[in-house]
Amino acid sequence: MRILSGIQPSGGLHIGNYFGMMRPAVALQAEGEALYFVANYHALTSLRDPEMLRANSRRVALDFLACGLDPERATLFRHSDVPQVTELAWILSTLAPVGLLERATSYKDKLARGMSANVGLFSYPILMAADILIYDSDVVPVGKDQKQHIEITRDLAVKMNETYGQIFKLPEPRIQLETETVPGIDGQKMSKSYGNNIDIFGDEKEMRKRVMSIVTDSTPVDAPKDPASSTIFKLYSLVASKNEIAEMRERFL
Amino acid sequence: MRILSGIQPSGGLHIGNYFGMMRPAVALQAEGEALYFVANYHALTSLRDPEMLRANSRRVALDFLACGLDPERATLFRHSDVPQVTELAWILSTLAPVGLLERATSYKDKLARGMSANVGLFSYPILMAADILIYDSDVVPVGKDQKQHIEITRDLAVKMNETYGQIFKLPEPRIQLETETVPGIDGQKMSKSYGNNIDIFGDEKEMRKRVMSIVTDSTPVDAPKDPASSTIFKLYSLVASKNEIAEMRERFL
Repeated sequence: MRILSGIQPSGGLHIGNYFGMMRPAVALQAEGEALYFVANYHALTSLRDPEMLRANSRRVALDFLACGLDPERATLFRHSDVPQVTELAWILSTLAPVGLLERATSYKDKLARGMSANVGLFSYPILMAADILIYDSDVVPVGKDQKQHIEITRDLAVKMNETYGQIFKLPEPRIQLETETVPGIDGQKMSKSYGNNIDIFGDEKEMRKRVMSIVTDSTPVDAPKDPASSTIFKLYSLVASKNEIAEMRERFL
Repeated sequence: MRILSGIQPSGGLHIGNYFGMMRPAVALQAEGEALYFVANYHALTSLRDPEMLRANSRRVALDFLACGLDPERATLFRHSDVPQVTELAWILSTLAPVGLLERATSYKDKLARGMSANVGLFSYPILMAADILIYDSDVVPVGKDQKQHIEITRDLAVKMNETYGQIFKLPEPRIQLETETVPGIDGQKMSKSYGNNIDIFGDEKEMRKRVMSIVTDSTPVDAPKDPASSTIFKLYSLVASKNEIAEMRERFL
């Protein structure tokens, strides 16, 4: 079984990366041939400082190794080490209906967040499909928000196979049901580009400040609260034991 | 001076290709280092039969050689012989506003002609920009309808240079003012994909039939006609001498 996963070189990693992608990726090392790459091609859609991109790529690789990636078991590389993915991306793009990308919610979310609508951002799901298909990946561990991209990948694989014969395997997403999307301090998906991240190896003082600024609602302190809609409860559940979670739930209700 | 030109491997070449691109390309061989390629990557946006694509690529190369391309003076190659253009295309796409492509009239024309809106068709101006910029091309001989693509290329070169330092030359279009766009038998731009082409080495009987079917208007045979709006007059002007053109004009008025 071949497992593929990419991670954005957006600097130091945050706990959204950890629970959403790194922890499962590290666990998957034991299950098959793991290919993990630092997505520096993708990063160019929002980061255009070459020095910073190099530094961030290095930093993310170090964080990944620190969190348990074993270079004896998994292959760690940069997106740009295999430029052939861009050739496959072109070929896939000639079979991809424009409407398929227009329906991608991740693109719409990014625009809603104020990112500029560049073509790279728009056509990124096609590069992601090329990343997955070029290695005959069987399994792609992703967050729930990336599930649509795996569906696009499968659509494109089917189109290629129908057009040119049996070329590509259809990859399966492996979605972490327990954690799904990790919320940031504003309750939205945690993302460096949204500025709502809590870093794994972040400065303690800064991280403390961020945790204290997690958005809650105006329910009085003593009143019952809904754990399911609480960012604090969701984040706590990621790190606490089952007993601790049950106890915290009691205190919310 | 470096000259770049690409031609679609859409099978046998037509006189629109000849006057719009091949004749000037052959003439330019004497002026500098000429790089001419068969655009098989681009062709994938509308042609998905591998056998036919190979055959058409070969046929277009043969037609080009037959029309005067000198392999001792110009370099003739396939688009896919330099897959690095797709890598550059990705990098350019991360700097290209989506709006830049949405304004491309050639894309809109193709959709209006009933071609399916695939992502390759949409993002083709970026691949074309990569084609031009990767070779430090000085001059790109194009038809008038391709002028906007050269402007997009220049926009992207400026953006790259502003972002990453002086990397790319700004190419100049060389538009054939006399011929501009060659009309097809229906009066629209001649194009294989529109089915209105008159081939250079086409079957004589078929070509004669096509010429006889050129669309005219319902002006009576004896009445004066406007040469400027006549497809027949425009096509005749491409092959006739100055005297012959003047004489034909007299017969129209």
